[in-house]
Order: sequence, then structure tokens, then C-alpha cells
Amino acid sequence: MKANPEAQSPIDIDPPQALRDAYRRVRSLTERLCEPLEIEDYGLQTAVEASPPKWHLAHVSWFFETFLLVPFLPGYVRFHPRFDYLFNSYYEQLGTGYWPRAQRGLLSRPTVAEVYAYRRYVDEGMEALLASVADVAWSTIAERLRIGLNHEQQHQELLATDIKYNLAYNPLRPAYRSDLSQSSCSQPTALAFTAFDGGIVEIGAKVDVGFAYDNEYPRHETLLRPYRLANRLVTNGEYLAFVEDGGYEDPALWLSDGWANVQSAGWQAPLYWERIDGAWHEMTLGGLRPLNPAEPVCHLSYYEADAFARFAGKRLPTEAEWEHAAATVPVEGNFVDDGRFHPRPASGHGLSQLYGDCWEWTGSAYLPYPGYRSADGALGEYNGKFMCGQMVLRGGSCVTSRDHCRATYRNFFYPHERWQFMGVRLAEDA
Amino acid sequence: MKANPEAQSPIDIDPPQALRDAYRRVRSLTERLCEPLEIEDYGLQTAVEASPPKWHLAHVSWFFETFLLVPFLPGYVRFHPRFDYLFNSYYEQLGTGYWPRAQRGLLSRPTVAEVYAYRRYVDEGMEALLASVADVAWSTIAERLRIGLNHEQQHQELLATDIKYNLAYNPLRPAYRSDLSQSSCSQPTALAFTAFDGGIVEIGAKVDVGFAYDNEYPRHETLLRPYRLANRLVTNGEYLAFVEDGGYEDPALWLSDGWANVQSAGWQAPLYWERIDGAWHEMTLGGLRPLNPAEPVCHLSYYEADAFARFAGKRLPTEAEWEHAAATVPVEGNFVDDGRFHPRPASGHGLSQLYGDCWEWTGSAYLPYPGYRSADGALGEYNGKFMCGQMVLRGGSCVTSRDHCRATYRNFFYPHERWQFMGVRLAEDA
Amino acid sequence: MKANPEAQSPIDIDPPQALRDAYRRVRSLTERLCEPLEIEDYGLQTAVEASPPKWHLAHVSWFFETFLLVPFLPGYVRFHPRFDYLFNSYYEQLGTGYWPRAQRGLLSRPTVAEVYAYRRYVDEGMEALLASVADVAWSTIAERLRIGLNHEQQHQELLATDIKYNLAYNPLRPAYRSDLSQSSCSQPTALAFTAFDGGIVEIGAKVDVGFAYDNEYPRHETLLRPYRLANRLVTNGEYLAFVEDGGYEDPALWLSDGWANVQSAGWQAPLYWERIDGAWHEMTLGGLRPLNPAEPVCHLSYYEADAFARFAGKRLPTEAEWEHAAATVPVEGNFVDDGRFHPRPASGHGLSQLYGDCWEWTGSAYLPYPGYRSADGALGEYNGKFMCGQMVLRGGSCVTSRDHCRATYRNFFYPHERWQFMGVRLAEDA
Amino acid sequence: MKANPEAQSPIDIDPPQALRDAYRRVRSLTERLCEPLEIEDYGLQTAVEASPPKWHLAHVSWFFETFLLVPFLPGYVRFHPRFDYLFNSYYEQLGTGYWPRAQRGLLSRPTVAEVYAYRRYVDEGMEALLASVADVAWSTIAERLRIGLNHEQQHQELLATDIKYNLAYNPLRPAYRSDLSQSSCSQPTALAFTAFDGGIVEIGAKVDVGFAYDNEYPRHETLLRPYRLANRLVTNGEYLAFVEDGGYEDPALWLSDGWANVQSAGWQAPLYWERIDGAWHEMTLGGLRPLNPAEPVCHLSYYEADAFARFAGKRLPTEAEWEHAAATVPVEGNFVDDGRFHPRPASGHGLSQLYGDCWEWTGSAYLPYPGYRSADGALGEYNGKFMCGQMVLRGGSCVTSRDHCRATYRNFFYPHERWQFMGVRLAEDA
Repeated sequence: MKANPEAQSPIDIDPPQALRDAYRRVRSLTERLCEPLEIEDYGLQTAVEASPPKWHLAHVSWFFETFLLVPFLPGYVRFHPRFDYLFNSYYEQLGTGYWPRAQRGLLSRPTVAEVYAYRRYVDEGMEALLASVADVAWSTIAERLRIGLNHEQQHQELLATDIKYNLAYNPLRPAYRSDLSQSSCSQPTALAFTAFDGGIVEIGAKVDVGFAYDNEYPRHETLLRPYRLANRLVTNGEYLAFVEDGGYEDPALWLSDGWANVQSAGWQAPLYWERIDGAWHEMTLGGLRPLNPAEPVCHLSYYEADAFARFAGKRLPTEAEWEHAAATVPVEGNFVDDGRFHPRPASGHGLSQLYGDCWEWTGSAYLPYPGYRSADGALGEYNGKFMCGQMVLRGGSCVTSRDHCRATYRNFFYPHERWQFMGVRLAEDA
Repeated sequence: MKANPEAQSPIDIDPPQALRDAYRRVRSLTERLCEPLEIEDYGLQTAVEASPPKWHLAHVSWFFETFLLVPFLPGYVRFHPRFDYLFNSYYEQLGTGYWPRAQRGLLSRPTVAEVYAYRRYVDEGMEALLASVADVAWSTIAERLRIGLNHEQQHQELLATDIKYNLAYNPLRPAYRSDLSQSSCSQPTALAFTAFDGGIVEIGAKVDVGFAYDNEYPRHETLLRPYRLANRLVTNGEYLAFVEDGGYEDPALWLSDGWANVQSAGWQAPLYWERIDGAWHEMTLGGLRPLNPAEPVCHLSYYEADAFARFAGKRLPTEAEWEHAAATVPVEGNFVDDGRFHPRPASGHGLSQLYGDCWEWTGSAYLPYPGYRSADGALGEYNGKFMCGQMVLRGGSCVTSRDHCRATYRNFFYPHERWQFMGVRLAEDA
Repeated sequence: MKANPEAQSPIDIDPPQALRDAYRRVRSLTERLCEPLEIEDYGLQTAVEASPPKWHLAHVSWFFETFLLVPFLPGYVRFHPRFDYLFNSYYEQLGTGYWPRAQRGLLSRPTVAEVYAYRRYVDEGMEALLASVADVAWSTIAERLRIGLNHEQQHQELLATDIKYNLAYNPLRPAYRSDLSQSSCSQPTALAFTAFDGGIVEIGAKVDVGFAYDNEYPRHETLLRPYRLANRLVTNGEYLAFVEDGGYEDPALWLSDGWANVQSAGWQAPLYWERIDGAWHEMTLGGLRPLNPAEPVCHLSYYEADAFARFAGKRLPTEAEWEHAAATVPVEGNFVDDGRFHPRPASGHGLSQLYGDCWEWTGSAYLPYPGYRSADGALGEYNGKFMCGQMVLRGGSCVTSRDHCRATYRNFFYPHERWQFMGVRLAEDA
Repeated sequence: MKANPEAQSPIDIDPPQALRDAYRRVRSLTERLCEPLEIEDYGLQTAVEASPPKWHLAHVSWFFETFLLVPFLPGYVRFHPRFDYLFNSYYEQLGTGYWPRAQRGLLSRPTVAEVYAYRRYVDEGMEALLASVADVAWSTIAERLRIGLNHEQQHQELLATDIKYNLAYNPLRPAYRSDLSQSSCSQPTALAFTAFDGGIVEIGAKVDVGFAYDNEYPRHETLLRPYRLANRLVTNGEYLAFVEDGGYEDPALWLSDGWANVQSAGWQAPLYWERIDGAWHEMTLGGLRPLNPAEPVCHLSYYEADAFARFAGKRLPTEAEWEHAAATVPVEGNFVDDGRFHPRPASGHGLSQLYGDCWEWTGSAYLPYPGYRSADGALGEYNGKFMCGQMVLRGGSCVTSRDHCRATYRNFFYPHERWQFMGVRLAEDA
């Protein structure tokens, strides 16, 4: 679960025509992401958190249907009477119930073709709705449409991460796409730390400056102590030193819950690392590849990120430290738009890789900002009810859309989860 | 797991050409059974015991590849180096290991098309092998071929039962085929009991009289006490009386393990029964239908069969009692060959429904016959290693092939299992 | 669970005074068995099946209270209003419900002293009841009393087995008694096989010849094929050869369910065997001891007994074969009366160790005899409802009372259970 | 897990004699708390988190043995060679391993008497150590002794909470002590909110001002927004309104994880509430009592505290808000020293119940303070490794020692836990 976007995105432009274009653009990307799939791949779910592509395709459509078409398009009839049950994810207040998350992969019907027909049907409804610009409810519609588009962008990222997980589970190690380009860089930018002053700073989203999720509000003051932030992400090579130094065997480096997780899950390396005849490989969306030590280490849990930081004599940044630094940096990097589907070695000067490549674990628990108010009704369940037990990640990844990223964006996952493109940036007290 | 066939089957005719014809016929039926499926249905597994159709299609081919092509066809090269791992079911002695049964539904690859290509590849190998009649190993080949064909027939039945289970799991209740004919009979043959004398009788398969699995040997004497056997299967109507009389709420009717199962699984009726607006319905391969009280009750566990018999003041027959009675009756009934895919109400005189319609639970544990010897090598794992904890069923069902049924055939399942087409015939002491 | 006794036992003598003496004798033994315990040991339950001694002490008293005092002693008031809930084991038809079996060890109250007070209270009631000999219900009372005494004898055995299990669980390996004598014999009787003719024989309990449980009735004819039975139990030394030959690593020797159990439970030897600095030891009620190869191997599951027999090229006897042989042998052996609390090496000539030492797994499933009728009411739940999924054991063990053993006695446990004193006697076809 | 104490405590006085007196005093209280127990109660563990009293008694002694006697008392010999394995709680760096927490209740040995002998043995060692004041290691010894005494105080509280849980589990509902006094007050202080200014404030422990755990350091600045804090804890009566308004059936009031917990655990009221014949009762250490609406509601999880605050239109305070307010209030209240063992209705003026009665859930995740450094070696595992997934509680309870409480003390538990004496104080933005 996460949230997002920023000021210059076309998604934020009110004119109905611009929003309609954004709608078409976002919906189209979702389907392009599925093009490399076989029909058999669409229904697969190999872990509770790795939903089938088919479910994502339908769920995001259900979102538009439920929050826009049903309430605002006169005469709209739902595509299928049971789809509100099958494709509601977790919105309790709708009162429809929902098919259990862990069993999304156990439904062969509707078929892929039927799900695409559902998308077409919703698209037609949305086009009709967006053609009715005189509607007095326009501002509400525009706001919900922005949420719906950002929502679909989040599921685009989940498509990539879930497809990766589901294919990597297969002992045949099938690639999602065999034509992905790879970095030949073997030497990343040298690690360095950038110093920041402390003091009272503002974080959080500004009102009326582009789209933001409710959990990014209100903008508020926070007190920082002087700190230093690494100029890039931790690399595979650096993390390999931790692995080979016995990092996964030394409880002194781990949080108690993390150590228990290492034991029970038998972790010995990041997700997708695999040692074959003594050589480390990494499963990617482009298939199995020899591990490139220059690339950022990816698919780490919070526990691993934290243990590595301890091993390195550093710590994770807080989300305020991260945001304060990132607010000065343009939103540039390696995104899904770039089509690499894999993090890229750091290059260049200054703070790099803040956006894209890998989400960055922070040492901050996902909690409401002071003065936080969730949205009313079922949409209020989007972010607020998850504010317990999870940790904040910042920045976006190589499978996030560029216009979905911004400095104030708060992503969040449980500390044991690692199937997202998650990495580490180190920090330390100044 | 079960076993079979009988004397007049083409499968039993030695001439290579006859066996080749049998091979083509059996292989063809497997694929015809899959014709109504969507590609999405091929990979589905909604319970450990309900394997995906795709897996069945590949596994039966792997069986021919492993036990015939690899050892007997010179120069044969396996279709894929990992398929012996993916499609071995449980043969430990092959030393390849096998993909866990519970996770057969978690593999989107190989695709359906690739699995059909695998079938073609194996078929070509088999045609080549069967063309080499002068082979000195012919008698072994012929014997293994008969096993392989009976094996594929067993998986044809599993295809039907597993597809039924997997589709019924879906809240949309999709039909396997919507064109299946239904019985309009509402009045089955009246229940009556046929008396049999006791004494020493022989049961088990005769040597050199058609094909039989190793677990049907040796033919041996057993001592029967006088008994009486119902002329037909218990009907839905009769079982409904048990349900409505509170049969599922009265522990006095149940075995201890059965009662625990009723509690933990929340059983209140046979599998596939569903009460909609007060009226009982039954999910079938033809879709959801109103319950027909004249049809045999089906999809009962041993626990339910036993509890019903106690409720009725009767008991289940032993397998020896059943076989002694069935040996006098021709192998006729409602089989997969008839294309109904559902049990049919009893009609006519005398002992009816012994073959086809529903497998019949007996009160006999599945144990080796006196003097039993399992086959040598991995094929010895076919039946012998399951001789613990399971109960014997007899007779075949509406999704069994006619030429797979015989009086001596011993099918076996755990007492809690009910996803097969399993019913009850009552018996009592004379 | 098991059952039994035999004809000459004082328990079978009708005169009230004799039964009163038997009552005192049996009740007294129960308490003597608990004398070596610390108060802390009384409440311990380290596995679902290993009930706390305190529970046994109370439950057997509850049995007399429920089936004798409440119905037959005028004016009797239950000792405590909740004890029928706490100390009912599994009698559904009483309608009181019962505290979950798995949680019997989670109750510190009633205290041990209170449980002994409960025993005294029930004893007083029983003395009063037994003093009322003119009671017209005497024959029913006498019959139930015999059941109650046999029942308490079964729980005496469970006290020994459960105490052993619960203490052996403790890494300190405390002994139940440190003063138990040990056998110095290192050379058991040589293994030999005794031949028996086949034919129709009778097994099961004769009416009016001493006490028997309902599951031993009716006496009936069965057909045996000629067979040979080992003259003694399998020894530790013989079983050690199986262990050292890789028996626990070779799936070809095991039933499918057995092999799964070996894998999931990590079995590598019988329960209580422990290798310390390369030398095999065995935990006993007398504490940890070096393994004596001459003693019978004990604490095997059915799976292990069956795998060993296959390894040895033999098989387990059926219960009919066992009983036919045992019927000719006097009930002599190493019982709880002998105070060894451990099996003893075989000595002497002829069939030895049939009674006492170790219960002997048979290859027979625990099923009703032909014509079996369970008792009426809740007492009918004593044996009948367990007739599914379990295997029969015969003969009694070193913690069974001598007057609880007889040739027709049918004990039964699940094939994976091994915490009872269970061993193996081999058989083969003649 | 929690921590603490404060400046004026004798524990903080360096002179060896004062520390020796503190040692005697603290050790003595532990044993007095166990006086009402039966021997059977000492070994009981009915949930993973509710350790047996016997284990607590031994573990706190092991702590002194391990961190003081072994390293500092020349010639000291451990009481028993296996006790470091049995009574280590979770200190990985000691390298001894530890008996699994969930199975602490499955050991009948050592007996209670042996555990008390262990305590005596350690006490003698400690007296000897404290008599050696010239030791150059004195400052280290004094520091570790303070930790050891605070540690034992924490386990005193756990003794009370675990005994309560373990006895309440018993359907007989035995009282820990039947002589506890009860409040007759039925009218608590009226609810009111006290306003606090925002701004930069300092929280955390001051160096060299009494004892504090490492997690209370370093004292640091934090930024507060103006807020208002309730003058007392939420009462049973107020919480009952939430229950009766359907609070446990309305997902809109709950965090997502909280709602999942309500469903899976079947929560319908606070732990220990029980409706008997329509009237609410509460299990207490004094036995089952009618619910007193004036008393603070106790034994709530974080999920419940948070849901109630949402229901009430308020929120939980942050730990900084709480500490800032509490720093101005003397450490007075209802502690274990008062012998009530139950929270007491609020009375009087101003901020009340900040210390004692119930621990107060805050909305702050348990994370390291900026600049936090854990202690070196195994003692560094005391607090630091738990800084993930837990929430902070403040203030102490009716089973905490008065001299264990202070404004900076940080207690922490998982959000689903509620067996501690945990309550709620409301807050809101000013």
C-alpha cells in the first residue's frame, strides 16, 4: 500500500480534457504492462501479497465504477452483479464484503477476456462521465478521478512486483520480458555523505499544489537534528560483504523480530538472490542474471535494511530527514517510464537515486501526521486505517511512474515484507 | 488413488496394434474431456487434492515417458529436463524428487500449449515404441502400457472431479458444460434388500484373466456370514431426511473422528449441496441445479456414509460382500462413456447401480490381501504404499470409463474425503 | 485407548464383597503409582495425548460418580458442580460438554489435594453403594463397576506412559523412580518362528466367561491361512541394525503416510532413543540409560513397526493370527505388577512375551467385528466410536496390570502414535 | 517488556549498604507476591506471554548470577549447569541458547523448592559480592545491580499480570487473593481536558539524575503543537457505552490490523469482562466482581484504545505530550505498594492517575530516541532490539512499584497485547 503524485503532472490539471487524457494514458499503461503475459500468468498468486494480474486489472476498474460511475453517471448499471464482491479489496464501509485476499488466485473466472471486456465497459462509462463537464459535482469527480488514477498507478507497480514474485516462484525461472536492457556499469559513484543542518523544517504536502494523498497532510513543522545522508543507495556489492561476513548468522545485528524472521523463514540473502555453483545470481523481470555488484541492493525487508545499517555503523534516515533532503532535488531517476524494470547503478554527482530505482526504508513508523484527518466515507479507508505496524518508505522505484513520485509521498509496508523494489540509503548523525 | 479394468477390454488384448488403438483411444478421451475448459481453468487448484487439469495432462504423459520411453525407446530424449521434477507425482524411488502436491496450481508455466506439445512429443515416442514389436521386452512393455492406460483413465476421472471442485469453488458457479442432459425421473426403484448366503468364497483378481492392479491380487478365500445388500444406492431424498432430522447435529450417530471433522469443517450437508432461499440445490458439472431427490446422494465422506447407515439402522457392506455380489452382475451402468457426468436415478429390477453412478464406500480398511506382493521398483509405489488409513470403495462412478470397471477393483480414499463421486449402498446382517 | 480383562480375575467375581475388594485394590494402585511424583508433576501435559496425572486421578473418579453414584446411590450429591465439565473425557451423549483435551495441563486448580479429596469422596460413595447389595439394579451396577475398574486400569497404564513422556520432555531428564531394577541380560532368546495351520478358527470373547469390552464381541469364525509367528519381540539390537542401515532415510521401506511423518517429525530413531557422544541411550521411567540391545525395542509407531518388518522381509501378524496363537498361552509376563516399568529381554522356550513387555502392533485396522453392537447410551461411546483410522495392538505391556490382559483384548492407536509401550513381533506366511 | 525508576529511590543511592538494603527489599517483595500461590500455580503458562511464576523467580536470579556473580564474584560456581539454558530469556549474545518461551510451562522440574533454593544460593552470593566494596569494579557492579533490581521489579509486575491471566483462564475462576479491598466509589472525577502550549520541549532522562534505562536516553528536544490532555483515565462506564453502541461490530472505528484481530480473536469486550446473566462482570486478582463503572477501563489492546478514542472524537496522546505533562506532576498514585492489585476510580483535582492504576497507551511507536546508543554486550539486548512493531505506554500501573515509576519511563508492547494493566487517557489538538 502506498500513495502519491506531484504538482506538474497532467493528472493535476483540472480541465476535463486534460484529465481525460490522463485517464487514457494511465489506463493504457496498465494494459501495456500486461502484454508480455501468457493467459496462464494472469490468474497466478503464489503468496498472499502477490495478487494475480487479472485481479489488479479488474480491481482498478471496480474502483472507478464504485467511486465514480455508480454515484455520478446517471443510469449506469454495474457490469456484473458479483464484481463488487470479487473486486473490492478491503473497503469495509461499502458493506459488500470482499473475496478473501489470500484466495484471489483461486478463481479461473471471469476469464482474462471477460476482465478486459469489463475494462472496456468501465472506460466507456468514464468517457461518458468526463464528457459531462457541466456537472455540478465536477470538483468531487475531478478529485476522485485523480485518486483513481494514482490508485491505478500504484497497482501498475504492484503488477510489476507481483508478476516478478509469481514468475520467480516457478522453478523454470521464466522471464517477464527477455528483451530488457541491462546496465554494463560495474563501478557506481563512490559512497559519500551529505550534511544537513538541523532546526525546525516543514514537511508534508502543501494544499492546492498538485495532488497528494490524505496521509501527506497536513504540512507541518518538525524538528531535525543535524544529519548526514548517503549520496546513493547501498549496492549489491556492499550488501554482499554483509552476507559473506555472516550477517545472517549474527543475532547481535538484528532486531528481535527480525532475527525471529530470519530463523523462521530461513533467510540467507535478499529475496531473488540465488547461489548457483558458487556464483550469486539474481532473478529479475528479465530473467535470471549474475549479480551485478554495482547495482543497488533490492528486495530487502526493513529488518535486513536495519541490520545492514547497524553492520555498517550507520542508521536509516527518518522520513523527515529524507523529505527535507529530497525537497531540494528534482524528480528524476529510473522509473517504469524508462522501461528497465530493474534498478540501475548510481552515477553522477550529488544526491542521486532519491527518486526511482528502489523505495528507501526509513526508520520512521507509519503514523498519522499531527492534525491528520482521513477522508470521509469508504475512501477514508485508503490510507488511514493502515497506520499501525508498518514502516515508511520514500522515493519510488524503477517500476513506479515518474509522475507518481514526489518528495512528500509516503509509502508503507510491514517490516518483514520484501517483495517490493525496496532498498537502503544510509544516514548518520552529524 | 484407485485402480482397475477387466477381461474383455481392448486394453487387455496383447497384439501391439490393439494396444496402439487403445493408447490412441484413451489419450484422445483425456483431451476431449478438456475441450470445454478455458485456458484459465487449466492451472487451477483450489484444494490440495484437486490438481490442475494442466498437471494431469502432463503427469500422465510423464508416466509413459518415464516408465516406457526412457527405458525402452532407444535414443529417446526427454522433452524437458525439469519435467521429471515437475510432473512426478509421488514416486520416491526415481530419486528426482517432485514438486509439492499442494503447489501444483502455482505454476503458470509450462503453458497449456506447451503441455499439449509435450503430449504430442510423447505420443510420437509411443507410436515409435509400439511400432517396434519385435522387441524382446515386449511383454514388459505391454504390461506397463496397460498400467499406463489404466493410470490415464484414473486421471481422466480425476480431471472430472477436480474440475468440478475447482469450478464449484468460484462464487460465480460456472458450469463445466451447459449442455448436459438431466434425468427427469423423480421416482427411483423402491429400496429392497437381496440376501446372500455366507460361507467361504473367493475374491480378488484371477491371474491371466484381463488386467488388474497388484492390489487386487492374490485371489484368495474369505469367510462371509449371511448378509443382505440394498438393490440400489441411497438417494438424495433419503439422505435429505437425515439432514433434516438433525443428523449433522447429533454426535451419537458419528464416529469420533467424523464428529470432529463435522465440527472443524462446519459440514451441514454433502459437498455441493447449497440451500438458496430455502430450497436445496446441488452444484454439478452442468451447473447449479435444484436437488433431485430421486438421484443417488453423491460426494459423501466415509464419515457421512457411516453416520447415515447408523441413522438408517443398517451398515456399510464389506468389500468382500460387495465383490461377492458384484461378481454375478455384468459391468453395466452410467459411466463417463455415457456423457452424463452425473449419477442417474435407479431403475429396473435386481441389484442396480453396482457399476457407475457413484463409488460405494465399504466398511473395509484398505489393507493388503493375504499374500500381497507389490511390484518391483518405483511402480511398486503405485498402490502398496497407500495401504494405511484409507477405506475401500467399489464399483466406479459416472465419470469412470466403462472398461476401467470390474468386480475386483479396489478404490481407496481417506475417510474425510468427499470430492470424488462417492455414495452409499446399505447392507445388513441376514 | 484400549480395553479388556479375563475370566479368573477377582474383578469378575460377582459377590459384592469381592467386587468391593477389587475396587479397593485397583483404586489403591492408582495412588501408589503417583507416590513418586512431585506436586509439580501432577499438572503437566507436554503433548495433547499425554494428560496430566491429576486429570487421570480425577477422571477415573468422575467415571464412577457419573455412571454409578449419580444414577444408583440415592441422595448422592456431586462433589463439585463443574467437575462433570472438567473431567468428562469425550462422552458427548452426557450433554455436559468437556474441557478441551489439549488444555488439560493448563489448569492449576483444583489442586492435587482437592483431587485426592475428590477421590476420597467418591470412594465413600462407592463403599456406600457396594454395601447396598439388595439393590435390584445389582447386575447393572456390577457390570458397570467392572467397566469402571478396567477403565481405571487403563488409566493406570496411561499414568505411566504419560508421566514418562512428560518427564522425558524435560532437558534435565528426571527419573520417575531412581530405584528401578534393570535387566543385566545381554543375550535374548534366539529368534525363531512357530508355524500355525490355517483354517476356520474362532476369535473374540465368549459370553459369560469373565469380563470383556464390547469391542471383543461377538466371538466369531474367521479364516486363517497357514502362518508363522516369531517366538519373541524384536530387540533393540535388531532395530538398531535398521537404524544404522539407513532405515529412516529410505522411502522404499515406508508407507506413504509413514514417510511423510518421518519427514515432518524428523524421526531418526524410536521415541526416547538419544545418541550422546556417539553412544545410544534410552530414556526410561528409571532415568536415562545406555541402550540394552537385548531388550525389546519399544515406543515404535505403526509406521516404524511396518517399515522394520519390510526391512526384515517379514510382516506384522493380523490380530486374528495373534489371538489364535495367544489363546493357547497362559497370561504370564512382565506386567506393572512386577514393578519393572520397562520391557525385559526374552528368555525361555516357546512363544514368549505375548503378554506384557510391549503392546504388539498388528496389521489389522481397528474395525467392528461382524455383528458388533455397541453398548447403549453414553457408555456405548467407550470403544465403538473409535473404529476408524486406528490399528489394533495386542498383548499388554510392562505397565499394564496382569489381570487386565487376555487373549481377546483389542487395544488400538493411530499409526503415528508411539508414546505407549509399543513394540513389534514379526510374522510371515507359512 | 518495559523498563525504569526514579531519582529518589534508595536503589539510586550508591553506598553499598544502601544498595544491599534495596536488594533485600526488592527480592523480598518478589517472594511475598508469590505467597498466596499454591504449588500447582507456580508452573502454569496458559499463553505464550504469561510465563509461570516459577520461571520468573528463577530468571531474575539467573540475571544476577549471569551479569554479576559469574563475572565479579571470585570463585563463584553456578547453582546448576543447565540453568543458564533454562532461565535465559532472550539474550542471544550469551551464546547459551534458551529454552523456548512458549514452553516454559512444560517443565515440572526444577521444583518450586529447588527454585527457592536457587534464590537463596544467589542471595548468598550477592551478599558476598556486596560485602566486597573495595572492588575496583564497583561502579560497574553498582550500575548492573540497579539494572538487576529494576529488572526484578519488572518481573514483579509480570508475576501479577501473568498470575491473573493464568488463573482467569481456569473455568473455576480462582482468586489470587480473596482478601483484597475494593473501591466503593461509584462516581469518578468528571472528565475534563487540560491545555498545554506547544513549542520545543525536552524529553528523556537526564544524565546522573537517578536511574534510567538506556531507551530513555538521550534527553533531547522535540517539537510539540498545542494540545489538551484528559484529567483522568477513561472509565469502565465510558467504555461500556462504546461496547453497547456496537463498537466491536463497526469496522469504520478500527485500524485495519485491529479489525482483523477483533474478527480472528472474537473480541467483544476488554479482556476479563464477562457477561453473566446479562450483567457485566470483571475477573480481578480478587476474583470475579460486578463491573464498577467508576473504575478505569483496563486490559485494553492498543487497537481497542485507538478505536475508543476515534469513537470519542479524540485521539491518544503522543509519548512526548504525555511526558511533558507528567514531568510537572509528583509520582503518586495507586501502586503495587498499596496492595490493591486493581485500578481505582479517579478522585481529586487536576491531572490524576498519571502514575499507577493503568499503563497508558500512547500513539507513539517504540523507536530509538535520536542519538540512542544501546549498552554494550548482552545487556544491550535489554531494550534496543525490541524497537520495532511495538507502541509506547507510559505511567505505570497498580501492580508497578512506586519507585519504579518516573516521567521518562518508556514501556512498550505489541498493539494486540492486552494482558497487562493497560488503559487509555484521551488527548486532542488544542
